[in-house]
Amino acid sequence: MKYLAASIAAGLAALAASYGNGKVISKTIECMARQPESAGNLRATMFIGVGLIEAVPILSIVIAFLILFL
Amino acid sequence: MKYLAASIAAGLAALAASYGNGKVISKTIECMARQPESAGNLRATMFIGVGLIEAVPILSIVIAFLILFL
Amino acid sequence: MKYLAASIAAGLAALAASYGNGKVISKTIECMARQPESAGNLRATMFIGVGLIEAVPILSIVIAFLILFL
Amino acid sequence: MKYLAASIAAGLAALAASYGNGKVISKTIECMARQPESAGNLRATMFIGVGLIEAVPILSIVIAFLILFL
Amino acid sequence: MKYLAASIAAGLAALAASYGNGKVISKTIECMARQPESAGNLRATMFIGVGLIEAVPILSIVIAFLILFL
Amino acid sequence: MKYLAASIAAGLAALAASYGNGKVISKTIECMARQPESAGNLRATMFIGVGLIEAVPILSIVIAFLILFL
Amino acid sequence: MKYLAASIAAGLAALAASYGNGKVISKTIECMARQPESAGNLRATMFIGVGLIEAVPILSIVIAFLILFL
Amino acid sequence: MKYLAASIAAGLAALAASYGNGKVISKTIECMARQPESAGNLRATMFIGVGLIEAVPILSIVIAFLILFL
Amino acid sequence: MKYLAASIAAGLAALAASYGNGKVISKTIECMARQPESAGNLRATMFIGVGLIEAVPILSIVIAFLILFL
Amino acid sequence: MKYLAASIAAGLAALAASYGNGKVISKTIECMARQPESAGNLRATMFIGVGLIEAVPILSIVIAFLILFL
Amino acid sequence: MKYLAASIAAGLAALAASYGNGKVISKTIECMARQPESAGNLRATMFIGVGLIEAVPILSIVIAFLILFL
Amino acid sequence: MKYLAASIAAGLAALAASYGNGKVISKTIECMARQPESAGNLRATMFIGVGLIEAVPILSIVIAFLILFL
Amino acid sequence: MKYLAASIAAGLAALAASYGNGKVISKTIECMARQPESAGNLRATMFIGVGLIEAVPILSIVIAFLILFL
Amino acid sequence: MKYLAASIAAGLAALAASYGNGKVISKTIECMARQPESAGNLRATMFIGVGLIEAVPILSIVIAFLILFL
Repeated sequence: MKYLAASIAAGLAALAASYGNGKVISKTIECMARQPESAGNLRATMFIGVGLIEAVPILSIVIAFLILFL
Repeated sequence: MKYLAASIAAGLAALAASYGNGKVISKTIECMARQPESAGNLRATMFIGVGLIEAVPILSIVIAFLILFL
Repeated sequence: MKYLAASIAAGLAALAASYGNGKVISKTIECMARQPESAGNLRATMFIGVGLIEAVPILSIVIAFLILFL
Repeated sequence: MKYLAASIAAGLAALAASYGNGKVISKTIECMARQPESAGNLRATMFIGVGLIEAVPILSIVIAFLILFL
Repeated sequence: MKYLAASIAAGLAALAASYGNGKVISKTIECMARQPESAGNLRATMFIGVGLIEAVPILSIVIAFLILFL
Repeated sequence: MKYLAASIAAGLAALAASYGNGKVISKTIECMARQPESAGNLRATMFIGVGLIEAVPILSIVIAFLILFL
Repeated sequence: MKYLAASIAAGLAALAASYGNGKVISKTIECMARQPESAGNLRATMFIGVGLIEAVPILSIVIAFLILFL
Repeated sequence: MKYLAASIAAGLAALAASYGNGKVISKTIECMARQPESAGNLRATMFIGVGLIEAVPILSIVIAFLILFL
Repeated sequence: MKYLAASIAAGLAALAASYGNGKVISKTIECMARQPESAGNLRATMFIGVGLIEAVPILSIVIAFLILFL
Repeated sequence: MKYLAASIAAGLAALAASYGNGKVISKTIECMARQPESAGNLRATMFIGVGLIEAVPILSIVIAFLILFL
Repeated sequence: MKYLAASIAAGLAALAASYGNGKVISKTIECMARQPESAGNLRATMFIGVGLIEAVPILSIVIAFLILFL
Repeated sequence: MKYLAASIAAGLAALAASYGNGKVISKTIECMARQPESAGNLRATMFIGVGLIEAVPILSIVIAFLILFL
Repeated sequence: MKYLAASIAAGLAALAASYGNGKVISKTIECMARQPESAGNLRATMFIGVGLIEAVPILSIVIAFLILFL
Repeated sequence: MKYLAASIAAGLAALAASYGNGKVISKTIECMARQPESAGNLRATMFIGVGLIEAVPILSIVIAFLILFL
């Protein structure tokens, strides 16, 4: 049951991070291609956004490690 | 059962936060590219929004930790 | 069973709050970018809306804590 | 089984309230940005609508509390 | 099993009422913003509609209370 | 099992009635706003339609009461 | 098992009838608003259609009663 | 098990018939409103179509009766 | 188990036939309304198509009868 | 278990064939109405396509018969 | 268990082949109607594509036969 | 369990290959019809793409055979 | 359980790789048809992209082999 | 249970990475075809994005290996 719990937490975290990041990064690339002059500004916002999005999935990965090694 | 509960709470929190943040941040980036003159205002609203969105998932992560260490 | 119940209540609350908030905040940002002159009015409505949306998920989190510590 | 029942009732109520409120409030914000002259009228209808929407989820939360403390 | 049944009936009723009300009220707000001169007429129809929509979910809530106290 | 059966019948009836009514009433409001001169005719058709839609869910609620008190 | 079977048959019948009727009646209202001169013809077709749609769900309700009283 | 089988067959038949009929009849009403001069032709095709669609769900209802009374 | 198998085969066959027929017939009605001069040709193709679509669901109904009476 | 297996194979085959055929035939009818001069060519391709689509579902029906009579 | 496995493999293969073929053939018919002068070229590509699509489902059917007769 | 595992691996591989191939080939046919002068180039890319897509499903089929004969 | 685990890992890997590759390759073909002059550049990016996409599914296939032969 | 957990973690990671990467890379290719002059800039952002997306799925794969060899 322990192993299953760790794998569910890790799998859902992976799904979540990929969904959020995929949405933000693909939108950034689309906007950079349309407005190349504001590429730096968009990419900076993208890095902040990716960091904010990955906060909770990384916590979920941490919980998966805790479950595994506790 | 304890481990499974913690992983479900953490996994759903990760999914929730990524979905909400991904939507808000990608919309912010899209709008910043269209109106670069109001980028500061939009980014400020984005930070407030991300904070409000992450409130409940962080509580869910807290519950996962409580389940794990209780 | 107790732990599982708390995690389901917390997880669904997180999903619910993120979905509702993500929708409202992303729409606010979109509208602020289109009408920067009414940004204050929109942001005020956004705060009221986020408060109204988070009422029931916070109650669900409270129920999760009650289940955990009862 | 008691705890699980309370968490399902609370979780579904949270989902329901967030879905309905998110739809109404985001639509209100969109319309307020397009017609700022009728903002007061729209916000009044929004408060009535949010009240009507939250009636049944609040009853479901009440049932969750009843299940918990009965 | 009794508690679970009450929570399912209440939860589905909350989902149903929020879905129906959310659709009707958001559409009303959209239409009131476009035709402010017929706002009274639309709001009257909205109240009738909300009443008709909530009839069956309220019956479902009644059944949930019956299950709980029978 | 008896309680569960009643709650499923009542819950699905609530979902069904809300979905059908929500669709019909929101469409009526949309059309009344576009053609205010035929509002009476549309509202009459709406009442007939709501009556026809609620026939089968009300039967399902009746079955839920029968299951509960049989 | 008997009660559960009756509730599933009744619930699915309610969902089915509401989905079909909701689609037909909302389309009729939309068309009546656009072509008020052919309202009588459309409403007649709507009544035939509702009758044809409700035939099989009513049979399913009959089966639910049979299961209940057999 | 016998009762459950009959209810599943009847419920799916109701869903199927309502989905197919709802699609055909709503499309017919839409087309009759746009081309009132070919209303007779369309309504005739609609009756043939409804008959063809209801053939298999009626067979499924027959199987439900067979299961019930066999 | 035997009864359940027959009802699943019959129910899925009903869903399948209604989905396919509903799609073909509603498209035929739409096209007949737009091109009334080629109505005969379209209706002939519709009958061939309905026959081809119902071939496999009818085989599935046959299997349901075989399961029932074998 | 044998009966259930046969019904699943037959049911999925019916769903598959109806989905594929419904898509191809409705598209053919749409195109025949737009280009009546190439109706023969399209109908020939439709027959080839229906044959190719029904190959695997018919094999699945054969497997259902094999399961039933083996 | 053996029979169930064979039916799942065959059913999923049927679904897969119908989905892929339905998409390719309906797109081919649409394009043949728009560009009748390149019908031969398109139909040749369609045959290659159908062959490539059916390769893996046929392997899955082979596995179903192997499971049945092994 | 062995047979079930092989059928799941084979069935999912069939679904996967058909989904990917169906998307690529239908897009190729659409583009070939619009730009007949670059048909050779597109068809070459299609063959490369189909090869790359079928790599992992074929590995999954290999695993299904391994499970069956191990 | 071992065989089932290997088949789930392999099946999900096949689904994942086909979904990602199908999206990238079909988009590449669409863009090559619109801008034939940058076909080389696009195809190079496609190969890099397919490599990056297949990295994790291939790891999942490796895990399936490890589960099978461990 | 150990093997199943590893396969779920690996399978979900593969799904997640393919979904996110497929979205980003297909959007990059689309934008490179529209703005060939900013291809280098877009491809650089794509590599950063793919790296950020694959971080959490790779962690999930690591957890799968840990579960397998622990």
